[in-house]
Amino acid sequence: MPAETGSDVEPIGLAVIGAGYWGPNLVRNAQATPGLRLEYLCDLDAERAHHVLGGYSTVRVSSSLDEVLADPAVQAVAIATPAATHLPVAMAALEAGKHVLVEKPLAATFSDGRKLVEAAESRGLTLMLDHTFCYTPAVQHLRELVRSGELGSIQYLDSVRINLGLVQPDVDVLWDLAPHDLSIFDAILPDDVRVVEVAAHGSDPIGAGRACVAHLTLRLSDGVMAHVHVNWLSPTKIRTMVIGGSSKTVVWDDLNIVQRLSVHDRGVERTDAVDLGAEARKQAIVSYRTGDTVAPALPEREALRAVMAEFSASISEKRAPLTDGRSGLRVLATLEAASESLANGGSFVAVQAQEAVA
Amino acid sequence: MPAETGSDVEPIGLAVIGAGYWGPNLVRNAQATPGLRLEYLCDLDAERAHHVLGGYSTVRVSSSLDEVLADPAVQAVAIATPAATHLPVAMAALEAGKHVLVEKPLAATFSDGRKLVEAAESRGLTLMLDHTFCYTPAVQHLRELVRSGELGSIQYLDSVRINLGLVQPDVDVLWDLAPHDLSIFDAILPDDVRVVEVAAHGSDPIGAGRACVAHLTLRLSDGVMAHVHVNWLSPTKIRTMVIGGSSKTVVWDDLNIVQRLSVHDRGVERTDAVDLGAEARKQAIVSYRTGDTVAPALPEREALRAVMAEFSASISEKRAPLTDGRSGLRVLATLEAASESLANGGSFVAVQAQEAVA
Amino acid sequence: MPAETGSDVEPIGLAVIGAGYWGPNLVRNAQATPGLRLEYLCDLDAERAHHVLGGYSTVRVSSSLDEVLADPAVQAVAIATPAATHLPVAMAALEAGKHVLVEKPLAATFSDGRKLVEAAESRGLTLMLDHTFCYTPAVQHLRELVRSGELGSIQYLDSVRINLGLVQPDVDVLWDLAPHDLSIFDAILPDDVRVVEVAAHGSDPIGAGRACVAHLTLRLSDGVMAHVHVNWLSPTKIRTMVIGGSSKTVVWDDLNIVQRLSVHDRGVERTDAVDLGAEARKQAIVSYRTGDTVAPALPEREALRAVMAEFSASISEKRAPLTDGRSGLRVLATLEAASESLANGGSFVAVQAQEAVA
Amino acid sequence: MPAETGSDVEPIGLAVIGAGYWGPNLVRNAQATPGLRLEYLCDLDAERAHHVLGGYSTVRVSSSLDEVLADPAVQAVAIATPAATHLPVAMAALEAGKHVLVEKPLAATFSDGRKLVEAAESRGLTLMLDHTFCYTPAVQHLRELVRSGELGSIQYLDSVRINLGLVQPDVDVLWDLAPHDLSIFDAILPDDVRVVEVAAHGSDPIGAGRACVAHLTLRLSDGVMAHVHVNWLSPTKIRTMVIGGSSKTVVWDDLNIVQRLSVHDRGVERTDAVDLGAEARKQAIVSYRTGDTVAPALPEREALRAVMAEFSASISEKRAPLTDGRSGLRVLATLEAASESLANGGSFVAVQAQEAVA
Repeated sequence: MPAETGSDVEPIGLAVIGAGYWGPNLVRNAQATPGLRLEYLCDLDAERAHHVLGGYSTVRVSSSLDEVLADPAVQAVAIATPAATHLPVAMAALEAGKHVLVEKPLAATFSDGRKLVEAAESRGLTLMLDHTFCYTPAVQHLRELVRSGELGSIQYLDSVRINLGLVQPDVDVLWDLAPHDLSIFDAILPDDVRVVEVAAHGSDPIGAGRACVAHLTLRLSDGVMAHVHVNWLSPTKIRTMVIGGSSKTVVWDDLNIVQRLSVHDRGVERTDAVDLGAEARKQAIVSYRTGDTVAPALPEREALRAVMAEFSASISEKRAPLTDGRSGLRVLATLEAASESLANGGSFVAVQAQEAVA
Repeated sequence: MPAETGSDVEPIGLAVIGAGYWGPNLVRNAQATPGLRLEYLCDLDAERAHHVLGGYSTVRVSSSLDEVLADPAVQAVAIATPAATHLPVAMAALEAGKHVLVEKPLAATFSDGRKLVEAAESRGLTLMLDHTFCYTPAVQHLRELVRSGELGSIQYLDSVRINLGLVQPDVDVLWDLAPHDLSIFDAILPDDVRVVEVAAHGSDPIGAGRACVAHLTLRLSDGVMAHVHVNWLSPTKIRTMVIGGSSKTVVWDDLNIVQRLSVHDRGVERTDAVDLGAEARKQAIVSYRTGDTVAPALPEREALRAVMAEFSASISEKRAPLTDGRSGLRVLATLEAASESLANGGSFVAVQAQEAVA
Repeated sequence: MPAETGSDVEPIGLAVIGAGYWGPNLVRNAQATPGLRLEYLCDLDAERAHHVLGGYSTVRVSSSLDEVLADPAVQAVAIATPAATHLPVAMAALEAGKHVLVEKPLAATFSDGRKLVEAAESRGLTLMLDHTFCYTPAVQHLRELVRSGELGSIQYLDSVRINLGLVQPDVDVLWDLAPHDLSIFDAILPDDVRVVEVAAHGSDPIGAGRACVAHLTLRLSDGVMAHVHVNWLSPTKIRTMVIGGSSKTVVWDDLNIVQRLSVHDRGVERTDAVDLGAEARKQAIVSYRTGDTVAPALPEREALRAVMAEFSASISEKRAPLTDGRSGLRVLATLEAASESLANGGSFVAVQAQEAVA
Repeated sequence: MPAETGSDVEPIGLAVIGAGYWGPNLVRNAQATPGLRLEYLCDLDAERAHHVLGGYSTVRVSSSLDEVLADPAVQAVAIATPAATHLPVAMAALEAGKHVLVEKPLAATFSDGRKLVEAAESRGLTLMLDHTFCYTPAVQHLRELVRSGELGSIQYLDSVRINLGLVQPDVDVLWDLAPHDLSIFDAILPDDVRVVEVAAHGSDPIGAGRACVAHLTLRLSDGVMAHVHVNWLSPTKIRTMVIGGSSKTVVWDDLNIVQRLSVHDRGVERTDAVDLGAEARKQAIVSYRTGDTVAPALPEREALRAVMAEFSASISEKRAPLTDGRSGLRVLATLEAASESLANGGSFVAVQAQEAVA
C-alpha cells in the first residue's frame, strides 16, 4: 500500500452511510485518515447518528441520502448498511458520481453485485470492498509469503472461524462469516488462481431457520482443495488458517497476540521409493523435512485504518484498490454457489466466472 | 472401568503378535498389568522381537503364530500386525479359543470385520479393539459429560487431527487417522446414536497416490452433524475436538497439557422474537448465555495401561469391553462409506447398519 | 463501582492536562463518560493538543493552566504530565478548588505526595490516582476473590511484568512499571494488610544509567511475602500474577485473552505427620488437594472508561474513590523504600506508614 | 555429546543403587544404553527392588551395597539414594574403584561434596552428576546459543520453576528445586563465568518448617544479575527461563511442547542521545530493534538416555562428563551460600570458589 497522502493534496470529502454496528468504526478511522475529510454521518435515524458522533463533534448528521449525495463536498461514501440495501444505496452513490467503499458482502446477490461493478467501471469510479481482514499485517504478510513463492506450491488451505456469534436474522453463517475467509483467500492467492467449484454442508441445531454451522470445500483452478469451517455456536473463539506449501507451511492464529504467524520450514515430499515389500508398513513413500519455525515481526496497526488509506489512495491514484469490486464479486459468486450446494445436499456447484462481468 | 484384578486370581496368559511400531507399547503395558502374564512376543522376524524385548527379559520370543496359539499357557493375544493381516491372524486366534485384542482398524474391510465379530461372539470370546484414545482420562470424561446429559442435547461435534504424519504406503489418511475420531465419537455418544451417512472430500497434493488431507461430514441418527478433519501434511500438530451442547460446550485440546478439557457454560438458544423490523440488523432471534469455564481435574495415567486393564477385566468378568468388536465394526462401516463417498465426488453414502451382524 | 451517572444530573466540567502519551486516552474516555463534560485539553504545546483532538472536535485547546483553572466551567482536572510536574500542577488545581485525577505515580516523592493528599483532604476534594489496571475486570474479580475469603488465607503473591519497554530518561524500571503491581496489590488486599518492608535488587546491563531489570521482595503486615519482577529489556511480554491462598490459588495471565483468570481449587496443606523415619524421602508432611480449575466469565470493557466513571461518581457522591490519594501515597512509600534498598545493596527497608498523613 | 559406544566394545557393568522415586528411571534408561550392562538393582528393601524390576527381568537384586561393590562385574554405579547418604555410598563406590553417577545434589554439604570430588580425581574415576535437565535438547541448544555468541553479551538470566511440589521432609524448596536452575546456568554459561554471590528470600506460609517459596538473586563474575524463583505451592506449573542478550534473547517455556524455545531477534541498545529537553518524556536514550522470532527445531529424545550415554562415554573416553563433580560442587557452593543468605535476612553471601578443590 502506498504511503498516506501528504497534506498538500485536498482531502477527499467522505460521507459514512449507516450508524449501526460497523459505522462508528468507519467514522473513527475516516477521521484519522489524512487523505479523507469526513463530511457527514448519514442514517435514517438521525438520533442514532448523533449518538455515534458523541457530544464533541463537528461532523454533520443527515438522515437524507439524497441530501448527502447532492452535496459537492462529498466525493466518496462508505456504506455500512444491511446487505439488502447495498444495491440501491451504492448505485445511487455511483450514479451521483461518488466513489464507494462498501461493507461486505458487495450485495445480496451476484447479479446485484455485477450491476454495481459495471456501474463503477463504466464511470471510472472506485468501488472497494471493506474486506477488513485483508488489510491486517498478518494477511499482508501471508499474501507476500504466498505470492513470492516462499511457501512453494500451495498444497492446501484451511480456515476455521468459530465463535459465539450474533445469529443474524437475515443471513446464515456462511454469508455472515465466510466472506472473511473467501476474501482472504482471494487476496493472497495468485491472480490466476480462482475458486471453480464449492461444496457446502451445514446444520441448524438450534432451529434458527438457517445454517449456524457450515463447512465449505473449495476446488481451486489449480486443483488445490481449500476448506472453510464457520460456526456461530462455539463458546470459544477459534480463528486459525493453515496454508500448506511444498516448501513451507504457515499457520495464522489470530488469537495468539504474541505470535500470530508461524512459518514452518517443515513438510512432506514424495520420494520415488520402489521396494514396498514385506516392510511396507514401516516404509513411507515420502520424505520429511524438519526445520525451524519463524514468527515474522509484524507491525501493530489497525486494519481499518489501512482500509481507509487504501480507499483514499486508490481514488487519488485512479487505480483499483486491493479489494476492488471484482474481488467482492468473486466472493459473492462463491457464496451463491455454496448456498446452492447447501440446498442440494452438498454436491459440488460451479462458481460463476469472473468473466461474467462485461 | 473396573478396578484392576487382584492378585488372588490367576493372571491371563498373553502373547503379543507383532513387534513393529506399536508392539513395544503393548509389551511394556502388558508387563505392567497385574491381571495379565506376558508369555510371548511373536514376530516373523525373531531378531526384531528380541530387540524389542531388550537384553534383560524373560519373555519368550517366537516366530511361529501356530506355536504360540498351540500353547495352553496363552489364553489371549494382542495383535499389532498390519491391518491386511488382521483377519487371518485374529481368526486363527479365535479358532484356537483365544481372546483377542486387535489394533485398529478391526480389519481391512467391513466384511472381514464382521467375520471376526461373528467368530468371537459365537465362541463367547472377547474381541476388543485397541482404540487407545477411548481410554484416556480426557475421553472418559467426555463420555461422562455427554452421556450424563451435562452438556444438554448435542448440537455438533468437530474433530481436527492434523500433524506431519507418516504417509502410509497402504492406506490413505482417512483409514490411518479417522479411526481415532470415529471410535471416540462411538465411545462418547449414547448407544442409540449412530452414524447414518457420511460425505468425504479429500486431496492428494503431493502425488502420493492416496488422500493426504480429508474432511468427513457425518450425519448422526439424531440429525446432528459431525465433522472430522484429518491431515498428514501439516507441520503443526492440532488435536482438537469441540462438542457443542444446548447447555454446555466442551473443548478438548489434547496438546494443552495443563488444560486438556474446557467446559464452557456458554451457548446460544433460540428465542421467540417477534418484531424483526427496522432494527433487524441489531436484533437476534436467539439468546446468549455467558458463564464460567471449568477445566476439570483429570488423573494422569497412560491410556494403554487402561486398555490392558479393560481387556483383562472383560475376559475375567465375561463381559463386553468398552471398545468391543461391534464398535470396531461400526468404525469400519463408516470408513468404507467414507471411501465410497471420496470415490464418488463427495456425495453422502449410507453407513452399513450394525444390525448386519447376525 | 456504581452505575454511571444518569443524564438528569449536570455533568462535571473536566479539563485534561497534558497531550502526551496518555492524554489522548483520557480525552477519548472522558468524552464517552456521561457524568463528565470535557471542556479543555491543555498543553504547553497547543499544536500537539490540537493534533490529539483531531480536525473534528469542539473541545477547546488551551496552553495556559491558569486560564483553565480560572474557568468556573471546569470542576475537575485529569493530569497526564510528567511525574516531576505532578506536585505543582495538581496543587494548583486543588488550590483552585478542582477535583484531581492524576496519572501514576502520585508525585515524584513521598513528601510531595503527602502534600497533595493533605491539600485535597483539607479541602474536601477528590484526589484520585489513575491506577488503570485496578479498574480492569480481572483486577476487580481478583479483589472480590481475595477480600471475600474465597482464596482462603493468602500465602504468597507474585507478579511479573516484563516487556520491551521504553527506557525512560528520568525514572528507572521500578518507578516506571512497579506502580502497576503495587497499586494492584493495594487494591485487592484487605484494608488492614500493608507493605511493611521491601528489598530490591536491580541491574542495568545496557548502561542506561538506571535499573532496567529489578526484583522487589515485599513483606506484608500479615507476614506474607510478595514478589515483583519488572523488566524493560525482555523481547517477550509477560504479565502474570499468581495469588496463592490456603483454599484456592488464582493465576492472572493478562495476555491470555481467552482466559485471563484461572482459579485453581488445588493446594498444599500441612498435615501432622509423625513418623518420618526410613521412608522420609517419600513421605510428605503436607497433604495435597486437586480440584477443578474455573475460569470466571469476565465482562469486556475498557478499564479507563471505568476510571472515568469512578472519578465522576466519587465526586458526585462525595466519597473516596477506590484508588484515592492515600493509596497513591502507599505506592509512593513503597517505591521510595525500594529505591533506598536498591542503593544499599538489597537490604530490607521499612516502608513509611500510612499514618504519616496528618 | 559423542555417539553411543559401538557394540564391539565390552559394555560397562553398572549397578543402580536405590529403588525409590528416581531409581526406576535409571534402571529403564541403563537397560536401553548400549555402552552399559545393568548388573544389579541394589536397595536395602529387596522387595521394593524386585517390584521396580517387575516380573520379567533378568537383572539381579541385592540388598547389600558391599556385595555389589565387591563384584568385579560392576565397574560403575548410579546412585539414587537420599542426599544425606550420598557421601558414604559414593565414597564407598569410589574407594572400591567404581565410576559414580549421582543424583543431585552431589552431597548434603559443600565440604562433603569436595571430599567426593577429591576422591574421584585422585583415583582417575568418573564422578558425574545426574543434572538431567542439562541433557535435554532445549538446554543443549541454549548452551550452543550462549557459548557461540549468537545471543551477544548476556544481559540477564531469569528462571521460574514453580509447581505443586512434594514438600520434602528434609530439604527446603531451594535445595529441592534450585539445583535444576543452577546446574543449567552452570552448563550454558561460558567456563569463566561463575556465580560469585547470592541473596535469598524465602517464606513458609504453610508452616512446613522450611521455605516453600524462594527467590534467589545471583551476581555472576561478569557482573550480570540472574534470578531464580522456586515455589512448591503453586497449583500451576511454570517452567520458564529467559536469557537476555545484547543481540538476541531466548525464552524457554518447557511446558510449551510445540515450541519450547523462542529466539527473539529483538532488543534494546543504548544510544548516545544528547538532547533530553522538553520532549524528554517521549524520547528514549536507547534504540529498539524488532526482528523475527525463530523457534529452532529440536530433536525429541529422553534426557536421561543422554545422561546414560554421556556417563558411559566419559568412562570409555576417560574424560570429564559435561556435568562433572566440579559442576556439582559449584551448585552445592551456591546452595550453601543461599541458605546462609536466607538465614541472615537476605544479604548477599559470597559463594565458595571452585579453587577450593585441591
